[in-house]
Amino acid sequence: MSQVQLTALPHIPIIAAGDDLIAVTLAGLSAAGLELRTGDVIVLTSKIVAKAEGRVRRLSQIHPSPAAQEIARYAHKDPRVVELVLAESRQVLRIRPGVLIVEHRLGFVCANAGIDHSNLGADPDQVLLLPADPDASARRIRAALIDQSGVEVAVVINDSHGRAWRLGTVGSAIGIAGLAPLTDRRGQHDLFGNTLEITVLGTADELAAAASLLQGGAAERSPIVHIRGAAYVAGDGRLQDILRPQHEDMFR
Amino acid sequence: MSQVQLTALPHIPIIAAGDDLIAVTLAGLSAAGLELRTGDVIVLTSKIVAKAEGRVRRLSQIHPSPAAQEIARYAHKDPRVVELVLAESRQVLRIRPGVLIVEHRLGFVCANAGIDHSNLGADPDQVLLLPADPDASARRIRAALIDQSGVEVAVVINDSHGRAWRLGTVGSAIGIAGLAPLTDRRGQHDLFGNTLEITVLGTADELAAAASLLQGGAAERSPIVHIRGAAYVAGDGRLQDILRPQHEDMFR
Repeated sequence: MSQVQLTALPHIPIIAAGDDLIAVTLAGLSAAGLELRTGDVIVLTSKIVAKAEGRVRRLSQIHPSPAAQEIARYAHKDPRVVELVLAESRQVLRIRPGVLIVEHRLGFVCANAGIDHSNLGADPDQVLLLPADPDASARRIRAALIDQSGVEVAVVINDSHGRAWRLGTVGSAIGIAGLAPLTDRRGQHDLFGNTLEITVLGTADELAAAASLLQGGAAERSPIVHIRGAAYVAGDGRLQDILRPQHEDMFR
Repeated sequence: MSQVQLTALPHIPIIAAGDDLIAVTLAGLSAAGLELRTGDVIVLTSKIVAKAEGRVRRLSQIHPSPAAQEIARYAHKDPRVVELVLAESRQVLRIRPGVLIVEHRLGFVCANAGIDHSNLGADPDQVLLLPADPDASARRIRAALIDQSGVEVAVVINDSHGRAWRLGTVGSAIGIAGLAPLTDRRGQHDLFGNTLEITVLGTADELAAAASLLQGGAAERSPIVHIRGAAYVAGDGRLQDILRPQHEDMFR
């Protein structure tokens, strides 16, 4: 009988710059009574990774460019936040009141470059950028977990993304280590021997969405989730594998 | 400690038109040793719901219109399949070789109106449409499960959807009963008392994506998944709640 078990690691402290997420994850696994097994996946929110990396910026130290001020007027946003959004983006795709939809410098499309005001403490001057290189963060955490446990695991860093066409955010993978983010079933056959039509499964994004059920969006109470029993193809995947090449994207 | 447990119900038979999915679900729960509890969620693939509803069509009985033939030339698709796609759609958004991106008559955006060749048996003349009214199917199944079990559960019907910007399909909710598909956290506060920025979570879609990890896309081996432990708001939600109104959609 196939089962997948997701566990929100308990007693995760509030994370600050410089904190060791590997030690935090290992302590959380121990508190949950979990010993890592081959095939387990650890999903961490972008937020705690970014906080551990010190990706906090102080708005009072940002000097918005004329372009940022102009966009801020259209978007009804703080020009200093817009300045940070532009610095974190390759391209602005849409501007609407309250939101800039951008291609993030990491390659994915998201709102406001993932820049977040919430859960940074009582200080409204602080905002949080996304991690500098989530694939590298995932690889580093994975290597340490394998070193400590002796078993092959995968790591996903997830972020809550809005979508075209549908309302509500869903957890999406922005950093990957130890798995192929897409499961390519092309050439495989279904129960009757027909070639499968739906052929490439977004496995890393489904893992990210599943973990998000326990992370509750912006709240930081369960930022690290352990997943056991999910089928995936082990491998050296990375975020880039999930991103639709711009020239193939029908909805830019 | 928060946990979510997903179980692929075992021994689900191949479903044919007229089969009783309620009896099949109850037998699967029994085979899994699961007794329904309040708050459980049952996720069924669109495919088995459609098959039980007899949504199979024979291509040899389809007579494509001139418009369907014209589009089929552009799209390099069977004109009879295009005829069915058009009949199931409100609007064609994009045409590319091999794919029509449409607004389905149910309101969501998807490829080829969700019309599927695979897992219909050895007969290449058969294709499968999506369920006629997935919300109604979910409500009917939910009512029977509550009647049988005496506890409040939710039902989601999911379908594998492609996305703008990202590669790979993810399980998405197309039928809903017994839950609010969006969890609205606006006005709630984070750990430090700040108002939350990411405010509306796509809970039904995250449940659909999580279940999809056990359903394996087009294969039909685990079409019914039981979820226990996921937090959601009980309520009379429906598919329409998740669909971004066209006038607010920046990516049509």
